[in-house]
Amino acid sequence: MIIIGEKINGFIKKTMEAIEAKDEAYLKELAQKQTDCGAAYIDICAGTMPDVERQTMEWLIGLVQDTVDTPISLDSSDPQVIVDMMPLVKRPGLINSVSKEAGKTETVFPAIKGTDWKVVALTCDSEGIPDAAADKYKIGKQIIEEAAEYGIGLDRIFIDPCVTTLGTRQDCLVEFIGAMKLLRADYPDVQFTSGLSNISFGMPFRKAINMQFLSLAMYEGMDSAIIDPISPDMQAVMHAVDALMGKDEYCMNYLSAFREGKFGK
Amino acid sequence: MIIIGEKINGFIKKTMEAIEAKDEAYLKELAQKQTDCGAAYIDICAGTMPDVERQTMEWLIGLVQDTVDTPISLDSSDPQVIVDMMPLVKRPGLINSVSKEAGKTETVFPAIKGTDWKVVALTCDSEGIPDAAADKYKIGKQIIEEAAEYGIGLDRIFIDPCVTTLGTRQDCLVEFIGAMKLLRADYPDVQFTSGLSNISFGMPFRKAINMQFLSLAMYEGMDSAIIDPISPDMQAVMHAVDALMGKDEYCMNYLSAFREGKFGK
Repeated sequence: MIIIGEKINGFIKKTMEAIEAKDEAYLKELAQKQTDCGAAYIDICAGTMPDVERQTMEWLIGLVQDTVDTPISLDSSDPQVIVDMMPLVKRPGLINSVSKEAGKTETVFPAIKGTDWKVVALTCDSEGIPDAAADKYKIGKQIIEEAAEYGIGLDRIFIDPCVTTLGTRQDCLVEFIGAMKLLRADYPDVQFTSGLSNISFGMPFRKAINMQFLSLAMYEGMDSAIIDPISPDMQAVMHAVDALMGKDEYCMNYLSAFREGKFGK
Repeated sequence: MIIIGEKINGFIKKTMEAIEAKDEAYLKELAQKQTDCGAAYIDICAGTMPDVERQTMEWLIGLVQDTVDTPISLDSSDPQVIVDMMPLVKRPGLINSVSKEAGKTETVFPAIKGTDWKVVALTCDSEGIPDAAADKYKIGKQIIEEAAEYGIGLDRIFIDPCVTTLGTRQDCLVEFIGAMKLLRADYPDVQFTSGLSNISFGMPFRKAINMQFLSLAMYEGMDSAIIDPISPDMQAVMHAVDALMGKDEYCMNYLSAFREGKFGK
């Protein structure tokens, strides 16, 4: 699993408070701990008002780069902010995210053309997030083909099939997996990612749903997830599912992660 | 999910102690709580020396039937003990289990012919437990066809594809699911069950593996499980996976189970 560590996000209450309090130690610790727990990318989302977003992003990028060498995932709803931050980032990272909303790919794709930057592509557009696998597939396909025009190959794209909310759509996992299958049929090398928490919005004991969503999506071939890698629950699911899928020889990774206290303490 | 409640089993230390201490209140509570948590069958396994197994089974059957109306699952490695206990059981229950070990089906199938008793059939024989899906399938098919000769249809058989141990066989889930798929191809109405704990034998933090095994096996169509239904972890997995698979309209079962405190307390 390619883990995109989600903790440095101004929409998370504790992180927002740390950003407001300029608590560098706390934010640096988030970068370090997520790296220690296997994050391949440290996501940075300022989550503040547009007028201070740029300066907050810049500050956070500096803090993270002072702490770890882990590549950065630049996370903003404004593609121009993302592109403007790229020169501050020392090594090619991840753009989180584009979609078929007007202005996104048009801004980001030229900026990452000819680089090693990767990109998360959401299967939504200006109309919103489609529920049906076929509609998610259609948008995913458009983005993949548009990326190809810029020489951005499948090894640089993570499609996020935008899981909706289980409380209102009981078929949300079925459609999510359906979209993965349709896209994989056309593009066997396509990679998938997803955040985990949207699916359980409005439900009690959300982690039960989030954990089993991770389990079943991994089983169906999701390559990556935007998660809190420090969470022992998530670590336990990822390691158990990898082992159960026969991907962990002699269960060595499971056993090491347990010994390192990543889960089961 | 058809839950076979596993708690009244003399091989479980606390239950063994309760059996030895003749602690009727504790054992009755196990029957009641498992029923309250959705057990379709209360498994009874004396787990004692052969000379006292029969009298322990009789006593346990009486205790359970004094407490709940839930059908009983008669669990013994000796098929003759199971058959001898059947007349004591008020309503048709479950035989746990037969296999292709010599003497098992030959003893049990004539005894349940023409009744409503159901049976768990393990895909093993006198040679042991096969690892490969194709071998599990072969034994399952033999048992299904032998059952048919006694008029015992697929609605009365739960095939247990005998999951082996992840620590020694990294393909144990793959082969388990492979066996389910092969059998379902021939017998679309076949039902599957499994115990959960063998798979994690020798591993640390076994519940992580047991929970994700339950999740993935349910996803692949396992109909039943031999589990501790009182466990909040198991309840959370079962309800979350059912909801994620689109089998729980408006997540009503998930929400009720949470409100009843079955998980998430």
